[in-house]
Amino acid sequence: MDTIDLDRAFAAITEPWSPRIAGELNGQQVRLARLRGSFVWHHHEHEDEMFLVHRGRFVMEFRDRRVEVRAGQFLIVPRGIEHRPVADDGDAEVILFEPASTLNTGSAPDDPRTIRVPRRLDDAGA
Amino acid sequence: MDTIDLDRAFAAITEPWSPRIAGELNGQQVRLARLRGSFVWHHHEHEDEMFLVHRGRFVMEFRDRRVEVRAGQFLIVPRGIEHRPVADDGDAEVILFEPASTLNTGSAPDDPRTIRVPRRLDDAGA
Repeated sequence: MDTIDLDRAFAAITEPWSPRIAGELNGQQVRLARLRGSFVWHHHEHEDEMFLVHRGRFVMEFRDRRVEVRAGQFLIVPRGIEHRPVADDGDAEVILFEPASTLNTGSAPDDPRTIRVPRRLDDAGA
Repeated sequence: MDTIDLDRAFAAITEPWSPRIAGELNGQQVRLARLRGSFVWHHHEHEDEMFLVHRGRFVMEFRDRRVEVRAGQFLIVPRGIEHRPVADDGDAEVILFEPASTLNTGSAPDDPRTIRVPRRLDDAGA
């Protein structure tokens, strides 16, 4: 039971699109991710996903609209909804809340940025 | 699917110890709470609970130690662990993540601050 400091944690995460597990509760994980540029279009069949911006901003693209999410704001993407995060204005540091089972690329597992086993924040090589 | 702005949301929450539901995902709720002074000692039998500080700071008291949690930091309290949040240095604005079933006072349901049905952020009277 230690506190996680988001500034310090994100400072150690340099690679984009590579979520790190910062906490677990009730079968859910808190993951920290650096967003840079455009991700892949995907959806999650069974998982809702929350994006809370710590620093920077990004645009969540949906097939029919775009939603900007800035520092201090969050957005929940319900299961089944296609989405694509795009950080075109510098990096966005984002806190994700989702089930431990969630694959980052969801329905697009062939994307090279797919991470099958996210690392923990305190793993060596952070 | 709209963004929630934390500054704006907390500005509308004036009452302490009265969590407001700001989002739901995977059976969990995002609740926003203003902490002021000392809460009641309690635990949650089946629910882990996450406290992420948006503004201010508070101390989480455990039976054997105290942990300060400041803005930009979070702490996860596992189920079964007795705890008491104390905000003695001004209000703390805290984002809670917990199962929708979680009672704010947990094992101390007779505390007058018990809220059986938390209100939603967008309910009238915010």
